[in-house]
Amino acid sequence: MIAAPFLLYLGHSADALGIKTSRGLAAFRGEDCVGEFRHDDCPQTLGLPRMTMEEGVAAGARTLVLGIAGAGGKLPAELIADAQAALNAGLNVAAGLHERLRDQPALVALARERGLQLFDVRDPPRRLSVGKGTPRAGHRLLTVGTDCSVGKMYATLALTRALQARGVAADFRATGQTGILIAGAGVAVDAVVADFISGAIEQLAEARDDDGWDLIEGQGSLFHPSFAGVSLGLLHGAQPEALVLCHEPGRPHMRGIPGRALPGLGECLERNLEAARLTSPEVRAVGICLNTSGMEREPALRLCAATEDKLGLPCTDPVAFGVDAILDRLLCAAPSTLSTTASR
Amino acid sequence: MIAAPFLLYLGHSADALGIKTSRGLAAFRGEDCVGEFRHDDCPQTLGLPRMTMEEGVAAGARTLVLGIAGAGGKLPAELIADAQAALNAGLNVAAGLHERLRDQPALVALARERGLQLFDVRDPPRRLSVGKGTPRAGHRLLTVGTDCSVGKMYATLALTRALQARGVAADFRATGQTGILIAGAGVAVDAVVADFISGAIEQLAEARDDDGWDLIEGQGSLFHPSFAGVSLGLLHGAQPEALVLCHEPGRPHMRGIPGRALPGLGECLERNLEAARLTSPEVRAVGICLNTSGMEREPALRLCAATEDKLGLPCTDPVAFGVDAILDRLLCAAPSTLSTTASR
Repeated sequence: MIAAPFLLYLGHSADALGIKTSRGLAAFRGEDCVGEFRHDDCPQTLGLPRMTMEEGVAAGARTLVLGIAGAGGKLPAELIADAQAALNAGLNVAAGLHERLRDQPALVALARERGLQLFDVRDPPRRLSVGKGTPRAGHRLLTVGTDCSVGKMYATLALTRALQARGVAADFRATGQTGILIAGAGVAVDAVVADFISGAIEQLAEARDDDGWDLIEGQGSLFHPSFAGVSLGLLHGAQPEALVLCHEPGRPHMRGIPGRALPGLGECLERNLEAARLTSPEVRAVGICLNTSGMEREPALRLCAATEDKLGLPCTDPVAFGVDAILDRLLCAAPSTLSTTASR
Repeated sequence: MIAAPFLLYLGHSADALGIKTSRGLAAFRGEDCVGEFRHDDCPQTLGLPRMTMEEGVAAGARTLVLGIAGAGGKLPAELIADAQAALNAGLNVAAGLHERLRDQPALVALARERGLQLFDVRDPPRRLSVGKGTPRAGHRLLTVGTDCSVGKMYATLALTRALQARGVAADFRATGQTGILIAGAGVAVDAVVADFISGAIEQLAEARDDDGWDLIEGQGSLFHPSFAGVSLGLLHGAQPEALVLCHEPGRPHMRGIPGRALPGLGECLERNLEAARLTSPEVRAVGICLNTSGMEREPALRLCAATEDKLGLPCTDPVAFGVDAILDRLLCAAPSTLSTTASR
């Protein structure tokens, strides 16, 4: 468990996507974020008080979160220097980069000397087993996507909170670095050895019998040629009772692959349902989440309504318009009449 | 490149499946195998001369292949002791277990001292990239399966050799430990970090423009809840022009999962074709390979004929009956009329 409260690192970053992990923490765990650390040349802010490491400690921070992602998940010298400064000030350090903090001898020695911890969020759990697909108790929802980075984590978190607000036991199950930092636990499924993809998710969202929900963050897309294997193993391991399809309207091509079109929503949903039936024969689709952050409100509302009509499922932007209609569908007691709607 | 000829290790193994890597090498690279090493209590033989390490060296062996697989891919003390004896006799040592030779300090030190090499066949390549699905030149065939261990490697090797016998340039591309030892190269795709499954296969079977074929060994099954993610990433990375479906008749359940039925051949083939179209829109099925080693010859021939009639594709046991009919289908020049046959 990564000790909160956090000081969020922006460093020198001028790239809005580059600070998405720090931004995710500020958005979903704002109560645990005492401030932001940025250098003088950093043009970005999360709207939190700017603090030095020492000021962060004085404000109660226990961990500096290196919530940035550079090219290739590298850990450049300047980041190492700032991590050293944090340790010297008395902060633990957490990061979710491909290059690990624990592979930096200077950081390891300093942390040991100061009695502090380094957290490599992307490390897979030590003892993973292969998945089995054995039916397990509990309600599970998985977000799936037409593409990477279309808002699956935001949708999953919004659904979790809305369920909790209705008094339903609900837990967010993180599968990526930002989600893990927000939840304080999870598995970076893209960093697991391939044999253990579905097994890692079976372990992440174990059987439960309290009538509560596990809401599992999806990754990638069955239609993304780089990552579909991860998406399929995740889908099988999740053994979901319900799927929510996430999409960002207007995206010109699959992320990172110019010229490759996104799948249609209906086709994407049908393929996910078909694949999910291997371990969850009664799986049903319960909604569509659109990331309309790049659109005006009125066209976004019209698009949601049109998508709802076309696919016969509640459609919303979970951040802008809430997820009540999806929860109504999720919690209503007539799954048998709903499971076919996605086939239209 | 692992230095041949080989001395094949059987150790103390009493389990026929436990020596499958040594057996695969004897079957497909017999000309490079000078003998077998087994302890007095080992009831098995590959029919090769039994040799001590020193006799192996005298017979020309350059590498001891620890071609056995125990529970969990462990490297027990007795195996380490035998590896030390091999190094002392002047042999390199190769293994494809989950536990790595290079993590044994005593072996590492001894190999260095003797100027010999340790080969951990399951190690993924150092620099992998994520797959892109960009169309690439060359002819590629992939074997897919209803389940794990149904004969995909044997089928792929048989197809490769039969193509070569017809004078067609053809290369076997290995994706598992036995295949890698047979080919002397390859990628153990189940050991790759999940993000890189398809990328590893794109790297394994690169673009080629000599009109020759890459025949890629499949792994797992889209219908196996433990490994389908690996199978899907492999399928996308392979970008296959042709698929051959492999199956073992009479298997009571999916490997390792009592109670889970195998998929039907037609359904399995259709799902593989559908998924393959993401990176290879014109993919076609060209044949079915049955592992009938547990059947009598006449019933096996009748089953092949019945399967051929039902699915409209050549069907054979590649080891017992050869693969000529599949090659005829593969090499015939009318793909457009063939690509739909699997949908029947």
